[in-house]
Amino acid sequence: MNMLTLIEKKKRGEALSEAEIRFFITGYIGGEIPDYQASALLMAVCFMGMDAAETQALTQAMAESGERADLSGIPGIKVDKHSTGGVADTTTLIAAPLAAACGVPVAKMSGRGLGHTGGTLDKLAAIPGMRTSFTVRELMRLVERVGIAVVGQTGDLAPADRMLYALRDVTATVDSPPLIASSIMSKKIAAGCQALALDVKFGSGAFNPTPERAYELARTMAELGRLSGVRTTALITDMNEPLGRRVGNGLEVAEALDVLSGRIAGGRLLSVALALAAEMLTLGGIAPTPEAARPLLMRALQEGRGMEKLLEMVAAQGGDAAALERPGTLWPVRRVEEVLAGRDGYVARIDARAVGRAAGLIGAGRFRKDDVIDPAVGVTMHCRLGDAVHRGDPLATLHINAEGHAAEAR
Amino acid sequence: MNMLTLIEKKKRGEALSEAEIRFFITGYIGGEIPDYQASALLMAVCFMGMDAAETQALTQAMAESGERADLSGIPGIKVDKHSTGGVADTTTLIAAPLAAACGVPVAKMSGRGLGHTGGTLDKLAAIPGMRTSFTVRELMRLVERVGIAVVGQTGDLAPADRMLYALRDVTATVDSPPLIASSIMSKKIAAGCQALALDVKFGSGAFNPTPERAYELARTMAELGRLSGVRTTALITDMNEPLGRRVGNGLEVAEALDVLSGRIAGGRLLSVALALAAEMLTLGGIAPTPEAARPLLMRALQEGRGMEKLLEMVAAQGGDAAALERPGTLWPVRRVEEVLAGRDGYVARIDARAVGRAAGLIGAGRFRKDDVIDPAVGVTMHCRLGDAVHRGDPLATLHINAEGHAAEAR
Repeated sequence: MNMLTLIEKKKRGEALSEAEIRFFITGYIGGEIPDYQASALLMAVCFMGMDAAETQALTQAMAESGERADLSGIPGIKVDKHSTGGVADTTTLIAAPLAAACGVPVAKMSGRGLGHTGGTLDKLAAIPGMRTSFTVRELMRLVERVGIAVVGQTGDLAPADRMLYALRDVTATVDSPPLIASSIMSKKIAAGCQALALDVKFGSGAFNPTPERAYELARTMAELGRLSGVRTTALITDMNEPLGRRVGNGLEVAEALDVLSGRIAGGRLLSVALALAAEMLTLGGIAPTPEAARPLLMRALQEGRGMEKLLEMVAAQGGDAAALERPGTLWPVRRVEEVLAGRDGYVARIDARAVGRAAGLIGAGRFRKDDVIDPAVGVTMHCRLGDAVHRGDPLATLHINAEGHAAEAR
Repeated sequence: MNMLTLIEKKKRGEALSEAEIRFFITGYIGGEIPDYQASALLMAVCFMGMDAAETQALTQAMAESGERADLSGIPGIKVDKHSTGGVADTTTLIAAPLAAACGVPVAKMSGRGLGHTGGTLDKLAAIPGMRTSFTVRELMRLVERVGIAVVGQTGDLAPADRMLYALRDVTATVDSPPLIASSIMSKKIAAGCQALALDVKFGSGAFNPTPERAYELARTMAELGRLSGVRTTALITDMNEPLGRRVGNGLEVAEALDVLSGRIAGGRLLSVALALAAEMLTLGGIAPTPEAARPLLMRALQEGRGMEKLLEMVAAQGGDAAALERPGTLWPVRRVEEVLAGRDGYVARIDARAVGRAAGLIGAGRFRKDDVIDPAVGVTMHCRLGDAVHRGDPLATLHINAEGHAAEAR
C-alpha cells in the first residue's frame, strides 16, 4: 500500500477502503506520510467526497489515534452538546447549566474560536480566575460534585484530527462535509460522551450556506455517532444573523447571564438554547421527549436554577462567581463607536460572518493560532433581520480597546 | 497576497491572475510557500484546470525562474523536437540526425525516462563512453562543429518546473493538461530553441487516452510557443502499441541504427521519425513545406547520411562510434524468455503502457529517481495490432539480467 496510489484512487473518485484510510492516518501521525501528500489527498476529497463507509473509517481511525477519555465513573448518561460554529452563539453557557440543573450530568470539552466564529473556552477565559485545563480525573470529580464542568480538551484526544485540522486550515480544505463531520465526531467519540446534541447551522454566518447542506452534514454526523455507540440528535438552526445581540467574549458571557437571570426573556438565543437543552434532557433520559422536557427547563429557568448552576460551575473551576453578579463593570473598554444607518429602510440581510469577523478584527477573535484575545471588546447589534430603521439609527456598537484594526472592522 | 487565498480561488474554479501565479512560483522556489500548500493548489488545478492566460503566465514564470540558455551564437534556426513520452519511441535518434544531415542545426536537450516511458538520455547512456553533460558553451561548440548535439539539461534551466515536477510526481498531480503543457514549454523556452516540433501521443501508452485530448494539449503547447516567440508545430501520433519493436535502452539504440542503416526499411517508427524530421526541416527554413522536405530526407536516409551524422555526434560526445557498427554484441544479457500466445486469434489490443512498465521492471526504466538502469535489458515485440497469431507463437521476448522483478514483468 502506498500513499500515491491512495491519492490517485480518490482523485478518480473511487472509495478508499478502511485499511487504506487507517494506513493514511497511521502513516500521517507517524510522520511517514508527508504533509504535501496529505494535503493533495485532502484536496481530492474536497472535490470527490467520501461515502458513508469511508467517513466512518476516517472518524474511527482519528478517534483511536490517541488517548480516549473514560467517563464511565460518572453516574448517569453523560450528554455533550456541539455547535458547528456561529456568531453570537453562546448557547452552551445557557443550555448546559439548565440541563445540569435538571439532572443531566454535563462533562463538556469545548474548543477555542477561529476565524469569525467564537469558542466557549475563550468566553470562559473572560471570567476572572476561571480555569479550563483539567485532567480527566479532575473533570470527573467536578461533574460528580457540581453536575457540570466545561473544560478544554483533556489529554491527547484524537491527535490525528488535530494535525489534519491544522493542515486543512492552511490548505483551503476545511469546508468538506465528510472532513468536517469526521473531525467533530472523532473528538466527541474520543472524549467519551454517551450522547450528543448537535446544533448544525446554516446561513451567512455558517459553513453551510443552505439548510439542505446543513441537513446533509447533520445526517452524516448522527450516523457516525450511531455507528460508534453515541446517541446523537441534531437541530438545524438559522445563522443568517448573529444568534444573540452581542459578539465578543465578555459581552457574550454577560448576555448568557442576562438570559439565565431573566433580564432577557425571549429572543432566538434563548429559543435555540432551550431547544438544545430539551434534546439533552431527552438524550439523558430525564424526559421522554423534547416536548416533555420543555416545562422542566422553563421551571429551572424561572426559579433561577440555571443561573445558580452556572455560578456554581464557575466557582468550582476557580472563577470569580461574585464578579459575575455585576458584569457591567467587569470588561471596560476605552471607547465605543456607533455604526449608523445610512438611509431609511428595512434590514434585508445581515452578513453574520462579517459581523463575527469585525469583532475578531478589534480583538475578540483570532485569525492565527497565536493571536491574543481581548475579553472586553466586540460588537453589540441593535437591529435584527426585518427591522425598520431610519437614517442615523444605530445599527451596531463597536467596543474598542486597541485601535489597530478598528478601521478595517467598520 | 497570500497562498491560502490563491488555493481557495482555484478551488472555486476562478482564474488566477498573472501576479498571483508569479507570487506562487517566486514564493515556492524561494521556500516561503511550503510543499503542502503547493500540492493543494496543484490538485485543485487538476480538478478545475487553467485557462490560456493562466497557463501562459505559469509557463513564463517557470521559464524565467532560472538561467536561460542563449544559443544565438549558433548560425541558423535552432530547432528542437519533443515527444510527450512513449514506449519504443526512439524517434529522436532517427529524426534529429536526419534533420542535421539536411542542414538544420540541432541543439537538443533531452530528459531521462520515468515510469513506463523511456528517455533519450538513458538511451545515449547505453553507448560506451557517451557523455551527455555539457556546458552551454560546449554545447554551442559541438553544434557548430558537428551540426547536432543531444545533451542533458545544461545549467539551471526552469528550476521552478523541476521542483514542481518532483512534487507532482509524488502527489498524483502529473496528468493535468495545463501543468503538462507549461512544464514542457517552460523548459523549451528556457533552453533557447527558436522552433519546436512536438510529437503529442495518445492511446494506451500515452498520458492522453484519446486523440481529442492529445489535440487539446498540442494546441495549448503550440499557443504557448507562439506567445513566447518559439515557432511550434505538433503532430498527433498513435501510441496504442509500442512505436518500434524494441523497448529498452540498448535495444532502442540498436533499432535506431537498424532504421538509419536501412536494415529496417519501413514501419511506424520510421514513418513518425520522418514526419517529425520533415517538420524540423520546414521550421528550420530548409524546406518550404513538410511535403517538400520528404525527398530531401529520403535521400539523406538512402545515402546513409543520417547514420553518418549520428555516428559523428556519438564520437564528438566521447562515445564509442565504432562499437555501434556491431550493436548485437554490445549489450549481452544472461538469458532471454519468450512470451507465447495462449490461443489462436488476432492481436486486438496491446497495452503499450504495460509493455513499457514490464521493460522497466526488469531494469530498463526507473520508478524512483535513484533507480539504476541496465542498458542491456528490455522487451522485443513480435506482434503488432491486427496480427494473426497461433497458440504457441512468440508474442514478445524478455531480455533479462537480474531476476528481481522478472516474475512481475511477465
